[in-house]
Amino acid sequence: MMKLNANQLNFSGGPGALPESVLQQLQTAMLCVPEVGLSILGISHRSQWFAQVVHELEDNIRQLMGLPDTTRVLMMQGGATQQFSMLPMNLLRDGQSADYIHSGYWSGKAIHEAEKSGKLNLAWSGKADQFSRLPSDAELQLSKDAAYFHYISNETVEGLQFHRVPGRDDVPRICDMSSDLLSAPGEFNRYAMIYAHAQKNIGPAGVTLVILRDDFMQTLPKDLPGFINYHAQADAHSIYNTPPVFAIYSVLLVTRWLLHDIGGLHNIAKHNELKAACLYQVLDDYADFYRGRAAIADRSNMNVVFNLPNAEIEQAFLQAAQQAGFSGLNGHRSIGGIRASIYNGLEIAAADQLADFMQTFYKRYKISTPQTSGLSTAYA
Amino acid sequence: MMKLNANQLNFSGGPGALPESVLQQLQTAMLCVPEVGLSILGISHRSQWFAQVVHELEDNIRQLMGLPDTTRVLMMQGGATQQFSMLPMNLLRDGQSADYIHSGYWSGKAIHEAEKSGKLNLAWSGKADQFSRLPSDAELQLSKDAAYFHYISNETVEGLQFHRVPGRDDVPRICDMSSDLLSAPGEFNRYAMIYAHAQKNIGPAGVTLVILRDDFMQTLPKDLPGFINYHAQADAHSIYNTPPVFAIYSVLLVTRWLLHDIGGLHNIAKHNELKAACLYQVLDDYADFYRGRAAIADRSNMNVVFNLPNAEIEQAFLQAAQQAGFSGLNGHRSIGGIRASIYNGLEIAAADQLADFMQTFYKRYKISTPQTSGLSTAYA
Repeated sequence: MMKLNANQLNFSGGPGALPESVLQQLQTAMLCVPEVGLSILGISHRSQWFAQVVHELEDNIRQLMGLPDTTRVLMMQGGATQQFSMLPMNLLRDGQSADYIHSGYWSGKAIHEAEKSGKLNLAWSGKADQFSRLPSDAELQLSKDAAYFHYISNETVEGLQFHRVPGRDDVPRICDMSSDLLSAPGEFNRYAMIYAHAQKNIGPAGVTLVILRDDFMQTLPKDLPGFINYHAQADAHSIYNTPPVFAIYSVLLVTRWLLHDIGGLHNIAKHNELKAACLYQVLDDYADFYRGRAAIADRSNMNVVFNLPNAEIEQAFLQAAQQAGFSGLNGHRSIGGIRASIYNGLEIAAADQLADFMQTFYKRYKISTPQTSGLSTAYA
Repeated sequence: MMKLNANQLNFSGGPGALPESVLQQLQTAMLCVPEVGLSILGISHRSQWFAQVVHELEDNIRQLMGLPDTTRVLMMQGGATQQFSMLPMNLLRDGQSADYIHSGYWSGKAIHEAEKSGKLNLAWSGKADQFSRLPSDAELQLSKDAAYFHYISNETVEGLQFHRVPGRDDVPRICDMSSDLLSAPGEFNRYAMIYAHAQKNIGPAGVTLVILRDDFMQTLPKDLPGFINYHAQADAHSIYNTPPVFAIYSVLLVTRWLLHDIGGLHNIAKHNELKAACLYQVLDDYADFYRGRAAIADRSNMNVVFNLPNAEIEQAFLQAAQQAGFSGLNGHRSIGGIRASIYNGLEIAAADQLADFMQTFYKRYKISTPQTSGLSTAYA
């Protein structure tokens, strides 16, 4: 078996693992960016070199996603959480209302923040089903006159992912793709706006991609303070004020890796499907033991979320996994359980290795049952 | 003479040079943080380790600045520019007014952004003097009932620095110390709030320190969206949402360096005064050639800003400096000229070396004059 290092066995929900080759380039850049001869931390954001970084990054994003030139690509700060509020602060100022899907933990956060700045209509909520599934089109209660429609394409906590584009085409469609942007191709031109913090598939924490269609931009106010003004940010090509230079450079390296090493979103999607398939296969093969949280049709290719028969076995699983070199497998603090996050940076070999580990763990469990009281010893 | 590398000869106005030992630790951390065994970019912001990073950083800031436990220390995103707007969004909602000093480029930006969110009173403007000096106390037109009083302690573009604490003690004093915080001791307890982006003396671009006195915190609204809500950020110890983990860790390393290697703010202030003194000495010795921009009493210990007899000589100076290994010496794009930024990370030896270079350049100029038309050749 291929020997993987600790970073390569990091299944963290985010910040997630980045490709080894990107980490190595960043390590070099910490003392010296080859083209400049200075530490990446000491290069001016007003330098020609950095203007080229931003320019190439904008182009790479458009190329990867198949976006036309009439799309703005911004790198902002404040994470998805800032976008949760900026959206209604920009679009619901005049008392208009927006449609939101509540499909899990993060869309709940989006709604909670947006409600402080505007009027919302709940198009659907998965709360009654404990966020174990996503809605069908027929279940969505969409308004024709909504200022916009908002949803989250992948719920990292619950492991739910939309495998289609919901919403009406005559209402601006806005999607938080923080945890699956650049993980697969998509019909991106059907969105008025897409945003995604970097720390899953795209780069380190500290920068957020915001992609806006020009026709939608025209509907946004121009008189807001600069830090919440999409026009100001777009006009300045993300250098309205000092941007997070290191984080943006990191994202550039990830897009180069996607374009040149991987060969685009079709290819990375195949990797991601293989990783997801091998882990979900274990869940299906040992369904009495590894209990998948998401409805099968809505399973996420990014976050494989499951429970074991009880909390004690879950603890034993996490301890044994840690001893085997895996990290980041604990479920989100809000729901516990186990979560294997398999973002772009995680290699297929790592998912294979985890699947093997899960099978072995299951077999050791079978041998030791029904002595459940001795579990911590048996699996530690 | 001590041989300095390119990072050590970086006089950039910001992002500025960081200490070599910090860069080396960050290089290691890019692949493996020693205490964790993972890349700094893949460590969860919810990990125990990162909670300790934030805890130690808060403590280090309090210790360095001599702040009591009744002070909140936040690490936020969005730079000083976000604070320019957040302040009036928090404090001028009910139609109150705030006093602002306009002492240069950056306080002008602060005023421009604040005006979009509230009513301001201009306590003083240096515009008539082309921002070449700072006001005396007698010149300040301060309001007794201002919601707060705002100024910038160091104007990086013009090279002006307050060497005293202006303002009334009965009005909340708020200061943007982006370019001189942690460069010298100060009467920090006389401020209701201090903020500073990291990329001068404190760390890389992408994180902003915000220091709030508890009694002032109590006057701030609690119903604002989380990303502009000081209470939400303080209650969460800067982990309201995913923070810029790498940038915060970098700042921790800088505070460790200040505490343990340098020995606190009194010592770093001595370093900074020596660096400033040796450069200003050259300006004073060759005042007909190196024309300091700032009034002598208001000279900045962070940014030594000057002009040469004409733009052609300035270009020749910058070219010769670059060939000698220096970088970042061009003045701010708004005013041109020359600027030597000598933040914490820049060593005394680097300032000495620049002073030597300036003397040599001057002497070569004297020999070649009055053949001004041949200057580019003589100094290139």
